[in-house]
Amino acid sequence: MTSPTEPVLTSYRRAAIIGGGVIGVSWAGLFLARGIDVVISDPRADIEDLVRTGLAEITPALAELGLPTENLTDGLSFEADLATAVAQADVVQENGPERLELKQEIWRTIEDAAPAHALLATSTSGIPASAIATALREPERLVVGHPFNPPHLVPLVEIVPGEKTSAETVERARAFYAALGKKPQVLRKEVPGFVANRLQSALFRECVHLVAEGVVTEAELDEIVTSSIGLRWAVAGPFRTFHLGGGPGGLPHFIEHLGRAMEDSMWPALGNPTFDEATVTTLVEQADDAFGRGTVEELAAERDRAQITLMRALGETPGSGCAHA
Amino acid sequence: MTSPTEPVLTSYRRAAIIGGGVIGVSWAGLFLARGIDVVISDPRADIEDLVRTGLAEITPALAELGLPTENLTDGLSFEADLATAVAQADVVQENGPERLELKQEIWRTIEDAAPAHALLATSTSGIPASAIATALREPERLVVGHPFNPPHLVPLVEIVPGEKTSAETVERARAFYAALGKKPQVLRKEVPGFVANRLQSALFRECVHLVAEGVVTEAELDEIVTSSIGLRWAVAGPFRTFHLGGGPGGLPHFIEHLGRAMEDSMWPALGNPTFDEATVTTLVEQADDAFGRGTVEELAAERDRAQITLMRALGETPGSGCAHA
Repeated sequence: MTSPTEPVLTSYRRAAIIGGGVIGVSWAGLFLARGIDVVISDPRADIEDLVRTGLAEITPALAELGLPTENLTDGLSFEADLATAVAQADVVQENGPERLELKQEIWRTIEDAAPAHALLATSTSGIPASAIATALREPERLVVGHPFNPPHLVPLVEIVPGEKTSAETVERARAFYAALGKKPQVLRKEVPGFVANRLQSALFRECVHLVAEGVVTEAELDEIVTSSIGLRWAVAGPFRTFHLGGGPGGLPHFIEHLGRAMEDSMWPALGNPTFDEATVTTLVEQADDAFGRGTVEELAAERDRAQITLMRALGETPGSGCAHA
Repeated sequence: MTSPTEPVLTSYRRAAIIGGGVIGVSWAGLFLARGIDVVISDPRADIEDLVRTGLAEITPALAELGLPTENLTDGLSFEADLATAVAQADVVQENGPERLELKQEIWRTIEDAAPAHALLATSTSGIPASAIATALREPERLVVGHPFNPPHLVPLVEIVPGEKTSAETVERARAFYAALGKKPQVLRKEVPGFVANRLQSALFRECVHLVAEGVVTEAELDEIVTSSIGLRWAVAGPFRTFHLGGGPGGLPHFIEHLGRAMEDSMWPALGNPTFDEATVTTLVEQADDAFGRGTVEELAAERDRAQITLMRALGETPGSGCAHA
């Protein structure tokens, strides 16, 4: 089922996915749809049911993205023993718990058991590759491949090299994720939260502040975002937006005029909320008002359909051939 | 040319647009396309040329949004004298310079000269209606109708009542902008920067930090945003996103687990950049690398076409009939 336009993927016949939670299942669905055999390694007794149920849930989205989904699970298998699971893998994507010692233990086992040619990536959202790799003999082989959840749907993969990750590993990871139809971005430094989560967190802090202060409700704030900055940032990032907002003078003009005003009067005025009891009560009550009418699964499916519609309109679905580097 | 589905607009035959800059021209194009006659009042000698050129530039976008643009300027006129310009207006949309004393002077004249039934709105992005209205006899009539630039294209209009703005004025403004095909949101409190610009500013602060620190370039950061949070926030705002990201437990679960971690370790780690010489040099050089190949006008037109494509896909163009409250 491999896309004939993706020769890179001919080197990736077998993937080991370590940890079959939400992220692992999403990666598994994407890998399988791209014709890569997947072995899931997860110690839970009911992992096979969990993964098969999860894959059935995301299959409609994979199909809407233009990916082949017939006989999707033909290449799927399970192997609780980690060393056995990775022994024939061309790529290992690890999605274990976010605990450094546990990840180090997992990766020591993988390093000993996986083939020398295997691409080794961790989905961690918070632990630097440098920290995990102190436990490895060949730290140059490990790289962070952090997806924005869910990986089968959101294009971004942040590739974050550790201090000792080799340039070759980084380039292999970039080419692999691009061939999957993702939009990999290689970061130049390891920083906590990487980039997308830091930005999301910065915006969300002000969201919590504005709701806690009673300026808007959650539902109103969400409407404001989708009808302004969300719509803008789906087609042009913040720097491009401000470059175009500065008139013919572009970003330099923007900085001199609006940027400095932002620094002087807006940034200091931004909120510093805390999740204290009153704030949490407000947030929870408003979430129930705004989102309480459907299950999370139903609402997520609705959101994902809208997002796929948007990606198709922009020619950015993995099946469209436009997302590849 | 009035859309037959918008009976609200039958009460708005004549608009006075005060200030014919970028925002004024954009409002004028939208009003005219909706069948509202527009008189522009601006003291500049070359205002007629400026406005006609500006309208010609945005006409293709109005047409792509599904609005009628034939004979668009038939209802357009110019009147430098402010009192004369507003004397027969059903709605006044003021887009003057962001200086309190000047706005107060403008609004005193408008209040004296405009018909008693006219809807009175200021596009200000930074001056509270309460402050302007201290100069008025009937402060209940003035409201902020702050568009996200450009008003003919971005759906959001923030309606921000001053302390004395009447509920009737707020409701009339909401109904008017909704009938134009916009997505008005009424804020519950006057805060500096209102909501959208505060959120944009919070995110941009971290953008500047990450580029200044060398974690990513401007172009890389923009790619990260468009391929993750931008895409998400175009279809679901931050609260809905985190409600759906919390699993079956929704936002309450998110707050207890990821929200508290965000407060403890992410928010304190966010950057506090300044536009010092080194930072500005980096930002300007990278903007030239990233955006220097086209004129701002060309790049903006390209961005706007992509945004209209996205709005059409989501059924959210003013002409689609889906954007109305």
